[in-house]
Amino acid sequence: MRRSQLFTKTSKTFPADETSKNAQLLIKAGFIHKEMAGVYAYLPLGLMVIENIKRIIREEMNSLGGQELIMTNLQSRELWEKTDRWDDKKVDIWFKTKLKNDSEVGLAWSHEEPITEMMKSFIASYRDLPIYVYQFQTKLRNELRAKSGIMRSREFVMKDLYTYSKTEEDHNKIYDQAKKAYMNVFNKVGLGDKTYLTYASGGSFTQFSHEFQTITGAGEDTVFVDMQKKLAVNKEVLSDEVLKQLGLQKGDLEEMKASEVGNIFSFGDAKSKQLGLVYTTADGQEKPVVLGSYGIGVTRLMGVIAEVFADERGLVWPEAVAPAQVYLAAIGEDAKVKDKADELYNLLTEKGIGVIYDDRDERAGEKFADADLMGIPQRIVVSDKTLAADKFELKSRTSKDTQQLDKENLIKKLEIISN
Amino acid sequence: MRRSQLFTKTSKTFPADETSKNAQLLIKAGFIHKEMAGVYAYLPLGLMVIENIKRIIREEMNSLGGQELIMTNLQSRELWEKTDRWDDKKVDIWFKTKLKNDSEVGLAWSHEEPITEMMKSFIASYRDLPIYVYQFQTKLRNELRAKSGIMRSREFVMKDLYTYSKTEEDHNKIYDQAKKAYMNVFNKVGLGDKTYLTYASGGSFTQFSHEFQTITGAGEDTVFVDMQKKLAVNKEVLSDEVLKQLGLQKGDLEEMKASEVGNIFSFGDAKSKQLGLVYTTADGQEKPVVLGSYGIGVTRLMGVIAEVFADERGLVWPEAVAPAQVYLAAIGEDAKVKDKADELYNLLTEKGIGVIYDDRDERAGEKFADADLMGIPQRIVVSDKTLAADKFELKSRTSKDTQQLDKENLIKKLEIISN
Repeated sequence: MRRSQLFTKTSKTFPADETSKNAQLLIKAGFIHKEMAGVYAYLPLGLMVIENIKRIIREEMNSLGGQELIMTNLQSRELWEKTDRWDDKKVDIWFKTKLKNDSEVGLAWSHEEPITEMMKSFIASYRDLPIYVYQFQTKLRNELRAKSGIMRSREFVMKDLYTYSKTEEDHNKIYDQAKKAYMNVFNKVGLGDKTYLTYASGGSFTQFSHEFQTITGAGEDTVFVDMQKKLAVNKEVLSDEVLKQLGLQKGDLEEMKASEVGNIFSFGDAKSKQLGLVYTTADGQEKPVVLGSYGIGVTRLMGVIAEVFADERGLVWPEAVAPAQVYLAAIGEDAKVKDKADELYNLLTEKGIGVIYDDRDERAGEKFADADLMGIPQRIVVSDKTLAADKFELKSRTSKDTQQLDKENLIKKLEIISN
Repeated sequence: MRRSQLFTKTSKTFPADETSKNAQLLIKAGFIHKEMAGVYAYLPLGLMVIENIKRIIREEMNSLGGQELIMTNLQSRELWEKTDRWDDKKVDIWFKTKLKNDSEVGLAWSHEEPITEMMKSFIASYRDLPIYVYQFQTKLRNELRAKSGIMRSREFVMKDLYTYSKTEEDHNKIYDQAKKAYMNVFNKVGLGDKTYLTYASGGSFTQFSHEFQTITGAGEDTVFVDMQKKLAVNKEVLSDEVLKQLGLQKGDLEEMKASEVGNIFSFGDAKSKQLGLVYTTADGQEKPVVLGSYGIGVTRLMGVIAEVFADERGLVWPEAVAPAQVYLAAIGEDAKVKDKADELYNLLTEKGIGVIYDDRDERAGEKFADADLMGIPQRIVVSDKTLAADKFELKSRTSKDTQQLDKENLIKKLEIISN
């Protein structure tokens, strides 16, 4: 897209009450807008990052056999009372509101209950199982504090997957596959090296749940990481007994701050029993369905990526999630420069390479600063100088070196990078 | 997709309190699930229809120069107080909730105020204008009655476009372009013949707003249509004076029930003045920005399409919005039938033709009934009989005639239909 047509601007400032690095940078770069504490709108560049992350997650969910749907924000009080999770003392992050007839309804902070209730319409026999469904949904959570930018918002986008299996054994299989799919997601968005499968508190059914924790000083969790084994233990469950059970040595562990980018959880048949989700086995017995629940905070993930890779000049997006691959800066007012840049812009666009084309009448310094602040992976300069040499100047966001390339080699290079 | 892997089922029943035809059919066909009155989840096939409609709308919004973003559900009380639209007596469809500190926040029923407020961060000079932005957002409206299925829900998907222009003249240009873009959308989703540009109440700034009303007995509005001129007048503004002004004759008008699928509205500079959205002109004057607001109820549009085209056998989706182009039914248990159907399924999928492949062990009658209930545009049968003749049987949802075609001609025909 052309910068002259993009309505957002970069800014040197951010709201005074914004203390998190991710939100400060995303606001300055024009990716998000703060509505109120913990509530952010996603502007065109921010929405592109979200959509890129969603595309990566969707691919993985589809390969698991997941079917996409979308549940509702408004939720029934009676349903959540059945599982004893309506009371604010039991779940302290509910937003609630009222219908015209004064009856209370809840606003979605999770969908385990509504999806499981709905499945009663579709699951009757063992032939109907397994079923894997997922959605991208805006969740609302009434957080007491919301000081971590888009890493902990009152309103955020979540991908949640729910698996319904016949038996514990079947469940364990899909649970392991989901574990791998989750790690694929974190690898693809560029966080693989910094993200650890982490043993965490499991609730009433299993001893452990599994979190995916990304190491960052901005994280709200404390984990103990075994770098060698690529495993971690959440502080909340750390004990000598647990370490022994997991075959980990205290001496091998490093204490670190981390952010939970994903969580997978076995519910066993507890929730199915509470809500009456049963199926008939091949030999005519009635059995409760075994449930798993798997979440990725999409906007949190975006915040963690922003937080982890940023440097003193601004955001640094990994290729796979960047709103564009190339920031194309036309420098100087020479008509020939403009023509050459226009031509390259059209060519790259045709080839499916995402470009932010800075066609504004601004100084080079301004354009370079914006390219850096926005964190676009590659910067291309077209100027009198490059024109004279019949070359283009290419520089990666994370390198100081520039390369002078002719058109053919430039395209070749970009095509390699974006694949 | 394979029916054996689709978790939804068709059903002969629907909730007893569901009185609208669109929701009854969509529930029976497994496209939606009713959470509570006026609140519906969208299951895989329903979500596909939504995404198809969104794709069509997005194309039109992008050709207007619209930039996509996404605003928030949680909204500030203080902001809506500035325009005197917070009070329940002024806007009677608010859902409201409270933060932990007990301060009230609103849930999005519209975004005119938040987007206009946000634009103060991006509009300073005449050089920043015009700006056109749009979003697909889940809106919540506390409707007293919600008896029209997905045509009037308490929770629904809306596309809203906002245009910010320098002058009334510039505004009128984009307003006319938006009018055309809207008509393109209704043409593309198949409702063009039944949808009329309609003069409706304009509020404080303009005499008229423009609605797009689709003729259907299930509609909640009454319009007077001039079929010849392809124009209508909403009953709410009908008077001799208005007819004279619009050059319409009473005798040419037909009274009809209709559903408002779109609405476009000029705000003038009233809201900009209330919120302080101003820009500096080329000669240094400060002026309020001219605002237009344009909505399409995406899920309502889906409901209207369902309502308008359905027949006694079920839904009938126009090609452009159907969840698949083809319902492929393999009839009989012969392994050769299965192989042939598998082969065709793979071939069509490769060619980018959407297929629901009914690979279940069900009777032919059951499969044909499902194909009809789901409203898939084309049905292909593979059976012993078609196999013997080395042909496939093709039938359109809206025709009684079947055709026997060889593979080559079948593919040719389908490719023509889906373009």
